[in-house]
Amino acid sequence: MTDNSFAVAAIIDGLKRCLPAGYKSVGLHEPCFAGNEWKYVKDCLDTGWVSSVGKYVDLFEKKLAEYTGAKRAVAVVNGTAALHIALKLVGTERDDEVLVPALTFIATTNAITYCGAVPHFIDSEERTLGLDPHKLNDYLREIAEVRSEGCFNRKTKRRIRAVVPMHTFGHPVDLDPLAEVCVRFKLDLVEDAAESLGSFYKGCHTGNWGGLSTLSFNGNKTITTGGGGAIITNNEDLGKLAKHITTTAKVPHRWAFYHDQIGYNYRLPNINAALGCAQMEQLPDFLAKKRMLAERYFHEFTGIQGVRVFREPEFARSNYWLNTMVLDKENKMYRDVILEAANDCGIATRPAWTLMYKLPMFESCPRMDVSVAEDLEKRIINIPSSVFL
Amino acid sequence: MTDNSFAVAAIIDGLKRCLPAGYKSVGLHEPCFAGNEWKYVKDCLDTGWVSSVGKYVDLFEKKLAEYTGAKRAVAVVNGTAALHIALKLVGTERDDEVLVPALTFIATTNAITYCGAVPHFIDSEERTLGLDPHKLNDYLREIAEVRSEGCFNRKTKRRIRAVVPMHTFGHPVDLDPLAEVCVRFKLDLVEDAAESLGSFYKGCHTGNWGGLSTLSFNGNKTITTGGGGAIITNNEDLGKLAKHITTTAKVPHRWAFYHDQIGYNYRLPNINAALGCAQMEQLPDFLAKKRMLAERYFHEFTGIQGVRVFREPEFARSNYWLNTMVLDKENKMYRDVILEAANDCGIATRPAWTLMYKLPMFESCPRMDVSVAEDLEKRIINIPSSVFL
Repeated sequence: MTDNSFAVAAIIDGLKRCLPAGYKSVGLHEPCFAGNEWKYVKDCLDTGWVSSVGKYVDLFEKKLAEYTGAKRAVAVVNGTAALHIALKLVGTERDDEVLVPALTFIATTNAITYCGAVPHFIDSEERTLGLDPHKLNDYLREIAEVRSEGCFNRKTKRRIRAVVPMHTFGHPVDLDPLAEVCVRFKLDLVEDAAESLGSFYKGCHTGNWGGLSTLSFNGNKTITTGGGGAIITNNEDLGKLAKHITTTAKVPHRWAFYHDQIGYNYRLPNINAALGCAQMEQLPDFLAKKRMLAERYFHEFTGIQGVRVFREPEFARSNYWLNTMVLDKENKMYRDVILEAANDCGIATRPAWTLMYKLPMFESCPRMDVSVAEDLEKRIINIPSSVFL
Repeated sequence: MTDNSFAVAAIIDGLKRCLPAGYKSVGLHEPCFAGNEWKYVKDCLDTGWVSSVGKYVDLFEKKLAEYTGAKRAVAVVNGTAALHIALKLVGTERDDEVLVPALTFIATTNAITYCGAVPHFIDSEERTLGLDPHKLNDYLREIAEVRSEGCFNRKTKRRIRAVVPMHTFGHPVDLDPLAEVCVRFKLDLVEDAAESLGSFYKGCHTGNWGGLSTLSFNGNKTITTGGGGAIITNNEDLGKLAKHITTTAKVPHRWAFYHDQIGYNYRLPNINAALGCAQMEQLPDFLAKKRMLAERYFHEFTGIQGVRVFREPEFARSNYWLNTMVLDKENKMYRDVILEAANDCGIATRPAWTLMYKLPMFESCPRMDVSVAEDLEKRIINIPSSVFL
């Protein structure tokens, strides 16, 4: 108990030194509207163009494509919708399996179920906090059978359609070996880049390895549109199709209502896209400030025993969306004590997500040995990361 | 051809007399932001509360419940999402059938397929332009078998779970006999009130007959939130559950991420709800103005041969969301000529939606004789209906 209270006090003190003097309450990630947000939103209200008509959706999509280096971006209501459509477009069908890290946000897994498919949980690696491509490779050698038409799970007999890595807290997964695994096992790669706008892998923006990738602009993300997300792709045909089925699959006509397939009402409203345009203008500044905050955390925590602040993998330049403390293995029993103490003194902190297979609706889904994810779940604490800190 | 050109010219002239002098181009239904929209939206930006945090979602839900007389309203991203969740909550499962008018917007039918269920198309009546409860009753007598556990289709052997009437262009369906049919055949009633905010059936707001009903606030609706919708219900448990599963089914906790079932990211962002609050304040004024415009159309078209402007059924007070011309049966061959002529001179007009079973993805779905809907589809033309006209 002496060690416990000592370690906890040192960590809370370290956090306090990184935060603005005299703070009362600090959120985990709050938005920053310091640019043209009001100007663009007011323009929507003045012209009446808040919904499906208006220029901001096109402009936002253009800005996203330019920034990420993808050929096409399609703005949608949120990251979950983006994942649902991306999985549909790689052909995910009822009773397929989709590989997904056990350590991820619920959206990644829910989107798989919206296709009628079954999540199949994969382990993570400590180096990236994301999916471990080498361990996945070994696992697939063991359980998968590659046929001319695709990859099948020998045990369940189901087709394994795709793998959905998620760039945890903004830190890129090791994409090159993962892409190799996908080629070897005939799997589609759908990057869940919800948390990694502004994060680069070997100099190229995340979201460019899969056929389709997804972004999120929820209120807690690096940039926000209120609620919003996007599908990005380098395949122009898939981009067109993504736009079509996220806008009810209506065939363009001066007046007739003809829809040529089952579509979705997933289009981002113009007023939300207006926010997004203003936020994108500030993204480089946001990223610079977030990197400075991360540096401050590294510096302050260097001397604190029993914990480290997570740094981007050597192959990546991360957006540091959410800064993360990783407790040493022998200190994991203090996680909840630290969470309690920090939140009690107004510093918002949170653990990683509950591992997916521990949730009642996914407990019977297939999974590999996920011992690294299990260990990480007990050691991760996210700490305040807003731009204005 | 003489009759044709004569009739068309008279109709276009009638429309012109109802529109503001000197107009250049008139949309079908454009939003009107004449109230506190700026104030509330700016408040969101100033406080940073644009997304999941903020007071406007709660306030908007309260205003909707008060106005419609329902016990609970749950704001969501759009009307399609509202329908999806309402159908889920009445228990719609994979391979169930759901009864739906052939004459409806695609959203009603798509939402059924999102549950893995099969749409079963029903005829409409000329008196309401909506589902015909008497014809439905006769049809169900013929094809349905009522067992202790519910209603089954004798031919397909599938369970018939629910019926989803849609209040076409804002005009209420004849709800009392429909509710009787639902009791008789053990069907859940889910009202698609997307178009009927402000429409009353026998003095009570539409959306109060089913266990769950849905609203839409798309950019073309009577009030708009950019994109948005709501589930309304008089069952408080269902209301709570609707809120829970539209917000990822996360169990409230100071920091832990635990979700107890498959949920959806369907919450309306706070910035969109802020628009909705301002719009709701103006709803009585909008409705009064829409009624005046409808009166103007009735008056101008009284003397025009071969067409009538649709009036609310005798049991209803309609919001006149979209004013509607109904061509006489012998004039239906002029529909497209009128659409062409009106749109050519800047007056937005459109026909009814293509009947659902004519779309490729629904052509093999079961349907009754839908001869009235087929006839109406050829005779309906929607005409400009914005509040500011």
